[in-house]
Amino acid sequence: MTIMKKIRLGMIGGGIGAFIGDAHRRASRICNDYELVGGVFDADYERSIEFAKNEGIDLKRCYKSVEDLISAETKMAAGQKMEAVAIVTPNALHYPFAKSLLLAGFHLVCEKPMTMTVAEAVELEELVEKTKLTFALTHTYTGYPMVRQMKDLIASGVLGTIQRIDAQYYQGWINSIIHGTESRITGVWRLDPKHAGASSCMGDIGVHAFNLIEYTTGLEINEVLSDLNPVKEDVKLDLDGTVLLRFGKNLKGVIRSSQVCGGEENNLTIAVYGSKASLKWGQENPNYLYMLSDTEPAKTFKPAHGYNMAFAESSHTMPSGHPEGIYEALANIYKGAAKSIRGEKFTPGEFPTVHDGVRGMKFIHAVVDSNKAGNIWKKL
Amino acid sequence: MTIMKKIRLGMIGGGIGAFIGDAHRRASRICNDYELVGGVFDADYERSIEFAKNEGIDLKRCYKSVEDLISAETKMAAGQKMEAVAIVTPNALHYPFAKSLLLAGFHLVCEKPMTMTVAEAVELEELVEKTKLTFALTHTYTGYPMVRQMKDLIASGVLGTIQRIDAQYYQGWINSIIHGTESRITGVWRLDPKHAGASSCMGDIGVHAFNLIEYTTGLEINEVLSDLNPVKEDVKLDLDGTVLLRFGKNLKGVIRSSQVCGGEENNLTIAVYGSKASLKWGQENPNYLYMLSDTEPAKTFKPAHGYNMAFAESSHTMPSGHPEGIYEALANIYKGAAKSIRGEKFTPGEFPTVHDGVRGMKFIHAVVDSNKAGNIWKKL
Amino acid sequence: MTIMKKIRLGMIGGGIGAFIGDAHRRASRICNDYELVGGVFDADYERSIEFAKNEGIDLKRCYKSVEDLISAETKMAAGQKMEAVAIVTPNALHYPFAKSLLLAGFHLVCEKPMTMTVAEAVELEELVEKTKLTFALTHTYTGYPMVRQMKDLIASGVLGTIQRIDAQYYQGWINSIIHGTESRITGVWRLDPKHAGASSCMGDIGVHAFNLIEYTTGLEINEVLSDLNPVKEDVKLDLDGTVLLRFGKNLKGVIRSSQVCGGEENNLTIAVYGSKASLKWGQENPNYLYMLSDTEPAKTFKPAHGYNMAFAESSHTMPSGHPEGIYEALANIYKGAAKSIRGEKFTPGEFPTVHDGVRGMKFIHAVVDSNKAGNIWKKL
Amino acid sequence: MTIMKKIRLGMIGGGIGAFIGDAHRRASRICNDYELVGGVFDADYERSIEFAKNEGIDLKRCYKSVEDLISAETKMAAGQKMEAVAIVTPNALHYPFAKSLLLAGFHLVCEKPMTMTVAEAVELEELVEKTKLTFALTHTYTGYPMVRQMKDLIASGVLGTIQRIDAQYYQGWINSIIHGTESRITGVWRLDPKHAGASSCMGDIGVHAFNLIEYTTGLEINEVLSDLNPVKEDVKLDLDGTVLLRFGKNLKGVIRSSQVCGGEENNLTIAVYGSKASLKWGQENPNYLYMLSDTEPAKTFKPAHGYNMAFAESSHTMPSGHPEGIYEALANIYKGAAKSIRGEKFTPGEFPTVHDGVRGMKFIHAVVDSNKAGNIWKKL
Repeated sequence: MTIMKKIRLGMIGGGIGAFIGDAHRRASRICNDYELVGGVFDADYERSIEFAKNEGIDLKRCYKSVEDLISAETKMAAGQKMEAVAIVTPNALHYPFAKSLLLAGFHLVCEKPMTMTVAEAVELEELVEKTKLTFALTHTYTGYPMVRQMKDLIASGVLGTIQRIDAQYYQGWINSIIHGTESRITGVWRLDPKHAGASSCMGDIGVHAFNLIEYTTGLEINEVLSDLNPVKEDVKLDLDGTVLLRFGKNLKGVIRSSQVCGGEENNLTIAVYGSKASLKWGQENPNYLYMLSDTEPAKTFKPAHGYNMAFAESSHTMPSGHPEGIYEALANIYKGAAKSIRGEKFTPGEFPTVHDGVRGMKFIHAVVDSNKAGNIWKKL
Repeated sequence: MTIMKKIRLGMIGGGIGAFIGDAHRRASRICNDYELVGGVFDADYERSIEFAKNEGIDLKRCYKSVEDLISAETKMAAGQKMEAVAIVTPNALHYPFAKSLLLAGFHLVCEKPMTMTVAEAVELEELVEKTKLTFALTHTYTGYPMVRQMKDLIASGVLGTIQRIDAQYYQGWINSIIHGTESRITGVWRLDPKHAGASSCMGDIGVHAFNLIEYTTGLEINEVLSDLNPVKEDVKLDLDGTVLLRFGKNLKGVIRSSQVCGGEENNLTIAVYGSKASLKWGQENPNYLYMLSDTEPAKTFKPAHGYNMAFAESSHTMPSGHPEGIYEALANIYKGAAKSIRGEKFTPGEFPTVHDGVRGMKFIHAVVDSNKAGNIWKKL
Repeated sequence: MTIMKKIRLGMIGGGIGAFIGDAHRRASRICNDYELVGGVFDADYERSIEFAKNEGIDLKRCYKSVEDLISAETKMAAGQKMEAVAIVTPNALHYPFAKSLLLAGFHLVCEKPMTMTVAEAVELEELVEKTKLTFALTHTYTGYPMVRQMKDLIASGVLGTIQRIDAQYYQGWINSIIHGTESRITGVWRLDPKHAGASSCMGDIGVHAFNLIEYTTGLEINEVLSDLNPVKEDVKLDLDGTVLLRFGKNLKGVIRSSQVCGGEENNLTIAVYGSKASLKWGQENPNYLYMLSDTEPAKTFKPAHGYNMAFAESSHTMPSGHPEGIYEALANIYKGAAKSIRGEKFTPGEFPTVHDGVRGMKFIHAVVDSNKAGNIWKKL
Repeated sequence: MTIMKKIRLGMIGGGIGAFIGDAHRRASRICNDYELVGGVFDADYERSIEFAKNEGIDLKRCYKSVEDLISAETKMAAGQKMEAVAIVTPNALHYPFAKSLLLAGFHLVCEKPMTMTVAEAVELEELVEKTKLTFALTHTYTGYPMVRQMKDLIASGVLGTIQRIDAQYYQGWINSIIHGTESRITGVWRLDPKHAGASSCMGDIGVHAFNLIEYTTGLEINEVLSDLNPVKEDVKLDLDGTVLLRFGKNLKGVIRSSQVCGGEENNLTIAVYGSKASLKWGQENPNYLYMLSDTEPAKTFKPAHGYNMAFAESSHTMPSGHPEGIYEALANIYKGAAKSIRGEKFTPGEFPTVHDGVRGMKFIHAVVDSNKAGNIWKKL
């Protein structure tokens, strides 16, 4: 065992009160491969400084802007310089910051959606290819051990020919906003096309269902036909929708996604049905993977068992029956990115890549286009 | 309490080896309102007679044809004559037999799909209106206590504005046929348009999901857009499909139905999401009804509790925790039909009517048409 | 296929408003092997007659007493005479009626507990042996397909050495009585030692858990040590208790039973843990049998699958995913008894016997004795 | 918001390959209140050094012995000195190290069981009282949000009078050892009384069930009667057992615990039944708390909802439906200890105390004594 130096991590966004930044920091600490050394934690510099103080971060590395960060850090010595940056800003800022940071030589961990447009996404993909830097997109759900087991079981062929795919992502939290329990203004930038992009429901959560399908099956969705619903007249974006999917000959599927399913918490599910067997998984009970078959009793796979494949087993640290959760899933992605950053060997699928980001943007835009054009098929 | 004379029941189809006829007879015995007195149990008269012997039925009332039955029974004395007939033949025979029997004055319990075409369905509806006879269509799942509780809870308004509806009916049994484990020939008349009608998956099971939506919500689906899948090249009917639904302004939904979901048994589910609360029910665990809300712990309704509404409570006879199943659901429908036949008071919804049959046929044909026309919206 | 003449059934008890008599009649109709021809339905003859009228039973065969019934029926012609009798009276009457009826040559279906004392139980067992009559004790839960599958799986040895057995029977309905929501007087003969016998909780429900253990494992419990709880000072019988079990060398277990577990409905469970695998089943979701193992994914067995053993498969009539319930379980026991009455071949375990009744009485009395003697071991 | 300096943490044990030490470190990083600065990570100094290198710990603070640690650290400046120590050694070493460290002024986080004997436990309790140092015992399961919600709901009185308590802790992992799949020697110090103490099953896991009962209900168990089982002849400790519990007048309960329940993973459950309502929780699905009632639909409490009480809500950081797991539970305990160490206000119950350790030791020894004495009642 060799000494594992921690990767010097920066963060853009994620300051005081930012839930997602906190999640990223916890994940980076769980896997223990990173040390947070600086960043631009808030657009408001005072608040950024306050955050840095609380976290015990060197105030000199608490920057006023991404430009300042790049300028200062790139001048530091090799053993000091920030190596990777986590981008956890509002959606619209992902692309410009990612571009600048890649051009400046930083590895990136980026929240999704990766960009606002397909063109931006493709541009980042080309940049990553050119720079050979690591780019991890935090489709967090791919970090769950049983999602990885699902991926490997499907790759092994146990399902036979895949015949139907059905994914769902239902939440209900936006009810309190559109029905006035919470203010729409303080409430949610997600309802504002300027900040959220072309889509609310599909862009924020439907795309996770999309990603999960492509991640677990290794298949690409060719075409979509969508019917979206803003639910209330004065809402400008989709809060709900269904997307018909076509993969290739004889394989169809569906993504159902909604933010107005009152009482649903974070109900992301995927079911892949094959000619020989089927697999079902749900995010709210992530340590259970169900394999159905017409000829055998249904099987329940759980983490920390010899019957799992290697990738799933390496993604869980506790003994069986000791549930790990979403922080550990995100930590697995950070762990995968760390391996890549250090040039170590890693399993494909250990972290979602810039290519997953391009696919996601294509999905979101095809879905929105299909709906606008009157529910017709659109190619990705 | 007055003496409850049993209704003299006849049966068309349902002879030796017929699963569905046996189910109808059990249901009629559970509710104890009927006495099976005769019928045409099999197209093969010898087998019909054999069946009648086994059941202890008067062989004189075991007829060679529906015409014979009508001719003989209509001549009998009022206290002897068959009063109601259960039609449990292959699909294509439902309509002609139902028509003849209604014209001859018999009350009917009819298996679904009610007819092969919308026109036939409408004709039967007109006949029922004219004759004032009882016509019960066995959408069995409406007989479950918790489905009835769902119907009444929704009618009471506890969900607020309904914002999304999602129903699923997944089975996997046709895999063994299309993949050759079982012979396609002996296998399944359901794959043959002549016997099954315009649709396999949607006509056989998707229509149950449709019915459950309209039954529980009291809403009508206005338009559908479908994408169906025969899955294998040489299959002529849909074995799988997704149907986008539109109800009215701002309310959309989806029906997902498949017969190739390997390992799924009889996975019919419905979820109705409202602005204030939501309800979820699944057929495989029929005694559990879940109410979700953004502001309260999720609630689980079960039969035989004072907190249920009257209709649900009258649909369950055992104390709480003693599970009743699908035979009892069907018995509830037979019980409702018996009340109607006897001219007693009954709750709307105690049995699905000929109108439900018309709606179902409209659904099936709109779905098939939408798919054929290239996945465009079709009105019901 | 030969003609299956229905067995002429009588019933003692079970008149108007009697829940358990209704359940027996439904079960006998579901399996279709019986015809209810007469009985003593109520201690009050007027009510008995009223019941008979409602059911369409020949009023001449509605008797004033069991003696009258025996006297009249035994004089009838062979093809007319009542063949079997179902005893569904309060507990204290099971024994005297069973004895008289056996001596008069009637096959019996008897509710549990079979008797009030062990001596009575042993006497009935001897009578059954001598008369060779069929005696079915309705431990209804043994009629569930997955309980039968559990029995056969254990017999097949797949569990290895059994290492621990844990059964539970929790209900909460007696809360409303002891806490005064319902009157104790109209309430419940079960709290009165005169009618209920030596025990409430253990005699009424604990004994089911006991029976399920011996039924599924084929093992005999040797000794028990119990701690019972009347919960309220003025209650004379146990409403709650735990029983330590010893089977033989190195195998121990526990039965937990209570009638004061507020909110529990009818939560009977059994878990049998072996060196190679384990099985778990619960009555409230009776169509799920779970097999756990340290080395394989957990398996879920469900009815109507080729992977089940013959006994379970013959105990379910619907296709998979169409839930059958407790009435069908009881019907399976009636079906088994019918086979025995007709002298047909049947599977051991198709109905609980008088011997199960003897074991049950021994269990109840050993448990009560252990508690009284200060929680010491008592042999069965 | 003031700057939150991290607490300088040491660790005894927990070196390379030690699962539990890793868990403690992750937990301390998740809550972000600690910085690991040194320790005695392994009895083998070379391995200890190797571990320190990998973790990036100052090698000068990687000590050869606890004595060395105390000697060196106590001489350091106030702002440098280790403040708290986590003891994650084999059981027999907890007591001597805890004693030395307390006497030297270190706050402690100690793995359970706290000591080998009751006397040692009492001695530590007295030391903690005298020194006023923080002593957190890692009964990890008390860190789950829904366990805390259960505690607070019970304290609020919603259950009415508690009438029965039933806790279970079933595992199966020891099967592979006693049945020879894994070597008993390399296998498990837990089977060796010298290292494990008086009990295997009760000492290792039964005591968690005990703790959970006292933690959630606030009640004390007065007496126990146990029947333990070594399962195999050559095993010297209990691997399985049942413990009858008495609390006070009219309240009884049971703890069931086993390490030979093949296929069970970490199945710790608790059910508390009251006259008005009941609560059930299970560790394998820790984010679900069930409230049962005889008069209302069952309710499911989940974290991150306004309907929870403050303690539960402060114990979960993700939005609802994003499952947190056992690491986060342990982090909550570390967080509570940190508040205490810093002299901040904290909720009673935020971390298990030395008193819980005393209670646990009394439980283990009373259980072992009861069994040895022939299954008689023993007071705690």
